Amino acid sequence: MTIEMPSFHDVYKARQRIRDMVWKTPLISDAALAETCGAADVHLKLECLQHTGSFKVRGATNKILSLDDEHRKRGVITFSTGNHGKAVAFVAAQKNIRAVVCLSEHVPTYRVEMIRSIGAELEVKGASQDEAERHYCALAEEQGLTRVEPFDDPLIIAGQGTIATEILSELPQTDVLLVQLSGGGLLAGIAMAAKSINPMIYVIGISIEQSPAMLHSIKACRPVEIEEKDTLADSLLGGIGMDNRYTMPLVQQYVDDHVCVSEEQVKDGMFHIFEKHRLIVEGAAAVGVGALLNGLVEVRGKRVVALLSGSTIDSAVYLKAIEERMKR
Amino acid sequence: MTIEMPSFHDVYKARQRIRDMVWKTPLISDAALAETCGAADVHLKLECLQHTGSFKVRGATNKILSLDDEHRKRGVITFSTGNHGKAVAFVAAQKNIRAVVCLSEHVPTYRVEMIRSIGAELEVKGASQDEAERHYCALAEEQGLTRVEPFDDPLIIAGQGTIATEILSELPQTDVLLVQLSGGGLLAGIAMAAKSINPMIYVIGISIEQSPAMLHSIKACRPVEIEEKDTLADSLLGGIGMDNRYTMPLVQQYVDDHVCVSEEQVKDGMFHIFEKHRLIVEGAAAVGVGALLNGLVEVRGKRVVALLSGSTIDSAVYLKAIEERMKR
Repeated sequence: MTIEMPSFHDVYKARQRIRDMVWKTPLISDAALAETCGAADVHLKLECLQHTGSFKVRGATNKILSLDDEHRKRGVITFSTGNHGKAVAFVAAQKNIRAVVCLSEHVPTYRVEMIRSIGAELEVKGASQDEAERHYCALAEEQGLTRVEPFDDPLIIAGQGTIATEILSELPQTDVLLVQLSGGGLLAGIAMAAKSINPMIYVIGISIEQSPAMLHSIKACRPVEIEEKDTLADSLLGGIGMDNRYTMPLVQQYVDDHVCVSEEQVKDGMFHIFEKHRLIVEGAAAVGVGALLNGLVEVRGKRVVALLSGSTIDSAVYLKAIEERMKR
Repeated sequence: MTIEMPSFHDVYKARQRIRDMVWKTPLISDAALAETCGAADVHLKLECLQHTGSFKVRGATNKILSLDDEHRKRGVITFSTGNHGKAVAFVAAQKNIRAVVCLSEHVPTYRVEMIRSIGAELEVKGASQDEAERHYCALAEEQGLTRVEPFDDPLIIAGQGTIATEILSELPQTDVLLVQLSGGGLLAGIAMAAKSINPMIYVIGISIEQSPAMLHSIKACRPVEIEEKDTLADSLLGGIGMDNRYTMPLVQQYVDDHVCVSEEQVKDGMFHIFEKHRLIVEGAAAVGVGALLNGLVEVRGKRVVALLSGSTIDSAVYLKAIEERMKR
């Protein structure tokens, strides 16, 4: 089987396809951060304000709107309980398409309610995420539902890549892009699209120390599983899939550099965004700002854009993190 | 002396004048709030994301960019230590114009530093706001500086009115506008502009129980001073000026109705905006949402827009308010 990698043409088509359902989010300047890290300027792309609270709605919309009538009639299925699940539920509800979300019995109640309230059907089964995933595969097969994968799908990758087209049409002079890295759908899409527009742009992937699955996989030249630890950036947890086909090769091909941020650096980012921009973001959204604040990337004299990827975080967890940081 | 009231033509000119320095802020939908209050839909205008963190930059820009070269060379002066002062300092800094901000000795340090960091000259003098204001008048006279009044000035009013043109070009079917009321520059500008575009729009002013100076003045048919109490919505404190010329007659002419919100209702609004939109706003910004959540305005079946006016609030004060509300 030949695998066809998503191209810039797919990003362009995605942009047309998702236009009416996805918000062209603001790009704001951060002069204080630019001064701290010596950059010519720093801009933040506010995907934390995107519909459903994260960039995930771009890929999910592109995937679901690509389905023909027959597949739309049958419905879609996913097993993410985070931002991707929320995005799939939202897009399906908007288009009156059946959506099933498979969960393990251990998913926190607030996440279950979040998905349910958007209108998706819930399938709670299994003691672990792996069991929920097996149930997801079986159910997709059994009921002919289309699987909406969280990242390793050309249409998902192309959808996330639309972010690069927005950034570069507004700030064509961008030198450096800082993008979250976990499963790699976001980073692969943005890096591929950005390099297609301007090959000189330097794209840096930001992983978290608690779960740098892609970094370990790239080093090992094959997908590897790693042990995960608790983190405020929980949207960046998870492996890259043992059967990874798209995101790993794309990240290898298009990404120039990688850095890894610590839990304290994530908090630094969240606190800066709270103090200076009055925006509440989840830990995953703050990794680029955390890296800049801590001098992890060399951006002297450069024009930098960092992506704030989402805002899904438990309120109590958020307030605790900000207060701890204020007391320092 | 005849007083010429600002007109829609002035708002139109303001829009052209301030275009490059003021952000056309997002208008986002709030389905949960619409359901709570039975409205057809509710949108929030995010002036809390505006440059300098509040709508005040619109009026300040319109005023300062209207000055001729001679007056620009001499500079501007104001005595606000809040959002207006910040806005004046910002606009002057952008245009390399000298800006002096007069403060009393009791202004909190964080506000002093906020204004200083933008680049304005500080004149700390007097034990009260009134003394600071007298110093402001004397200094303006002495040094030939242009006074940039916080609200009672046709150019300031026209600048704030540009918000209505943005809302109504995006949502021409708007039925009801909810706008903060204190000195009245914002409400007068928006009401006048909105009614000029569509006389059927119902404009409601939202005051706070702690300081409803305009309401008392309208009732008394002349500007009155009232005793003020502490509030989270401190941007709405302050009188309307004993020599009020513009905002009181405009509010009388163009505003359809008034409501007054309590401190708890302000907190309800702030908490809703925190929980549902992941935005940090000051108390003054949340009064419209607080009024809707508490059924203070009848909006059944209507298309409603509420303005989130700013985000200047001390972090510790903000966190305390949100946590109190979470524990309920």
